[in-house]
Amino acid sequence: MSKPLVFEKPLGMRDILPESLAKQRHLEAALKHCIERWGYEEIATPSLEYYDTVGLASATLADRMFKLLDKQGHTVVLRPDMTTPIARVVSSLYKDVSLPIRLFYQANVFRAQEKEAGRNAEFFQTGVELIGDASVDADAEAIAIAIYCLQAANVSPIKIAIGHVDFLDGLLDEIITDPIIHEKFRRFLHDNDYVSYRHLADTVDIGDQDRKRLHAILNLRGGKAKIAEARELTINGKARKAVQTIESLWQALEAYGVTEHVLLDFNLISNLNYYTGVVFEGYAADLGSPLVTGGRYDKLLDQFGRPAPATGFAIKMDRLMQVTAFEQGVEKKTTVIGYAADNRERAVTMAQQLRKEGNVVITHLLVDGETLAPFEQRGNCETIYLVAQEGNS
Amino acid sequence: MSKPLVFEKPLGMRDILPESLAKQRHLEAALKHCIERWGYEEIATPSLEYYDTVGLASATLADRMFKLLDKQGHTVVLRPDMTTPIARVVSSLYKDVSLPIRLFYQANVFRAQEKEAGRNAEFFQTGVELIGDASVDADAEAIAIAIYCLQAANVSPIKIAIGHVDFLDGLLDEIITDPIIHEKFRRFLHDNDYVSYRHLADTVDIGDQDRKRLHAILNLRGGKAKIAEARELTINGKARKAVQTIESLWQALEAYGVTEHVLLDFNLISNLNYYTGVVFEGYAADLGSPLVTGGRYDKLLDQFGRPAPATGFAIKMDRLMQVTAFEQGVEKKTTVIGYAADNRERAVTMAQQLRKEGNVVITHLLVDGETLAPFEQRGNCETIYLVAQEGNS
Repeated sequence: MSKPLVFEKPLGMRDILPESLAKQRHLEAALKHCIERWGYEEIATPSLEYYDTVGLASATLADRMFKLLDKQGHTVVLRPDMTTPIARVVSSLYKDVSLPIRLFYQANVFRAQEKEAGRNAEFFQTGVELIGDASVDADAEAIAIAIYCLQAANVSPIKIAIGHVDFLDGLLDEIITDPIIHEKFRRFLHDNDYVSYRHLADTVDIGDQDRKRLHAILNLRGGKAKIAEARELTINGKARKAVQTIESLWQALEAYGVTEHVLLDFNLISNLNYYTGVVFEGYAADLGSPLVTGGRYDKLLDQFGRPAPATGFAIKMDRLMQVTAFEQGVEKKTTVIGYAADNRERAVTMAQQLRKEGNVVITHLLVDGETLAPFEQRGNCETIYLVAQEGNS
Repeated sequence: MSKPLVFEKPLGMRDILPESLAKQRHLEAALKHCIERWGYEEIATPSLEYYDTVGLASATLADRMFKLLDKQGHTVVLRPDMTTPIARVVSSLYKDVSLPIRLFYQANVFRAQEKEAGRNAEFFQTGVELIGDASVDADAEAIAIAIYCLQAANVSPIKIAIGHVDFLDGLLDEIITDPIIHEKFRRFLHDNDYVSYRHLADTVDIGDQDRKRLHAILNLRGGKAKIAEARELTINGKARKAVQTIESLWQALEAYGVTEHVLLDFNLISNLNYYTGVVFEGYAADLGSPLVTGGRYDKLLDQFGRPAPATGFAIKMDRLMQVTAFEQGVEKKTTVIGYAADNRERAVTMAQQLRKEGNVVITHLLVDGETLAPFEQRGNCETIYLVAQEGNS
């Protein structure tokens, strides 16, 4: 194993330089401002959690987690998400706080990466969790906040794809008896692998009518009209109930006036085992990978001993950064005051006065005929020389 | 090894609940606002760094670091500080940026804790680094910013203790020939173990005059007058030069008008091996442990292949939180609108209007005679019921 060079960083780790970071901070502030208006309060949880608690309950696969042993010999992980730690808090420190509880976070999460992937191993999310409300109104609230957040971040156009995990599950239950094949169909949809899905639908041993229905699932993507199409496709109780929930959700979203951004997608599978009801993903225009992932997770809190329905979403800051322009307005010039040793007090006093007036000011002692050229090269600065003797300039 | 309970967190790890976090965010914003005026730009570095690069160069002891193996088999550490990663950046991504470079950060750092200590293993710092300026004016700038930051955070009174590592080193060189005993004296001062220091001074094999000087070191704590006392105590070149630097620094701090907050401390040892010149610590009144630690570290950048003088400081957010009051002003009331299903659109529309006007608004569907009592119990909220049928209320 060769030693890393002194300037190298671990795989998937990044420095965020000032220009990018200013944009990220700007977006974080905009999202925070938006979310707080809905009565959500910000919470922070530790970077490290026990594997046996948060690690096991998380939706992230164990081999994607950064694991280490603490000094007491327990396996700890760098938090793979924020939803699971918040579930832990709601079940412990918040156990006497009555539901519903509204919390949000702006935090980094970790995912160990393979060498080939070239993906970030540490990334930033802003997310909300609404815990203790089973109504479709809660789903609608989460979706509406996601839309308002993307608007606050100047994303345009915005598309939110909405599905329900029970629709596909119920419909497949109705058609496919073998659970392994059932799972294969789900995985192909999860991976957007429609070629394999169609091939399996063509070859699996079922009747022609059912084969048609398997193919028809792929068309259940569109506006309000897809609700009726979905209902006609199944008599399975679970799937029918999912369609009913989506119909109620649509009405709730109409109340928020946001349905223009909504795309119903009855074959949306965000995460294979985590969500339990309505799921959604947010996109900017036709961008391939989602900016937002969210949905209902009614089973998670149970794992921490406080059973409660819950919904929420996370906005991926890195992707948001890619799709939003950042207008810093008229960028503020930096004033650089270069001074000879004799003029230190003048320079410092002038700088403090200018700072009080809201300016960004650097003072720099000029030694041995030095100039302010290094500052001028960086641009966007105004230089002032205080080199004459005090009282003579 | 027993399994941790589901609600437990690893040793030294904390959740930060909304009220505390709001205070922390408020303080971070105040510090950022202060620091940016001095021309410092915010930077972020990854949570994980290679042990062989940042880990080895850091001032933190190896056994205090959280270490793990990455998928490529390298040892990585959770960053023990931010100064070392910034030195890495200045030597790599910033290698073509001319000096001086001014950067700041607001970040969490990690320190593995023993069971007995009860200390935080993850803590937040706001810090500045001024890289590429060897002048005493740079030291003064760092100290002045630290004072302005503490003022911005409403710390009062503020005390900054200032010393120079070469004074004690030079003076001990002059008196003590055995390097092991020399190091013992330094360590006793570092640990504020004056009993052991005095005992060693009383028993070490030296002349009476030197013994007096070893005791006199302990009195070199006070105002400007201590400069002359320090100078009289030594003829060692290194120590004398350190006194000269402190005298120049005092003049520079007079230019900033901040000497009322300064306490000279010629036996201040902030860190045994890290600092190379002027060192300082910031306190609130008589609080035992420092809020701010800083100083000159002219050797660190060399380890990353870009030799440059540097100075900076870090403010420990946890300690700052303890000593500052937080006035949120008139706390904003949350409006909670409870509605029957029929009134959803009215409720949502009213909520959006109120949010637009700057209010924090929660909407809640009332099911089966439910009330808004859970919200009222939390206090500081105003409730509105929309339960009559639309058009009749």
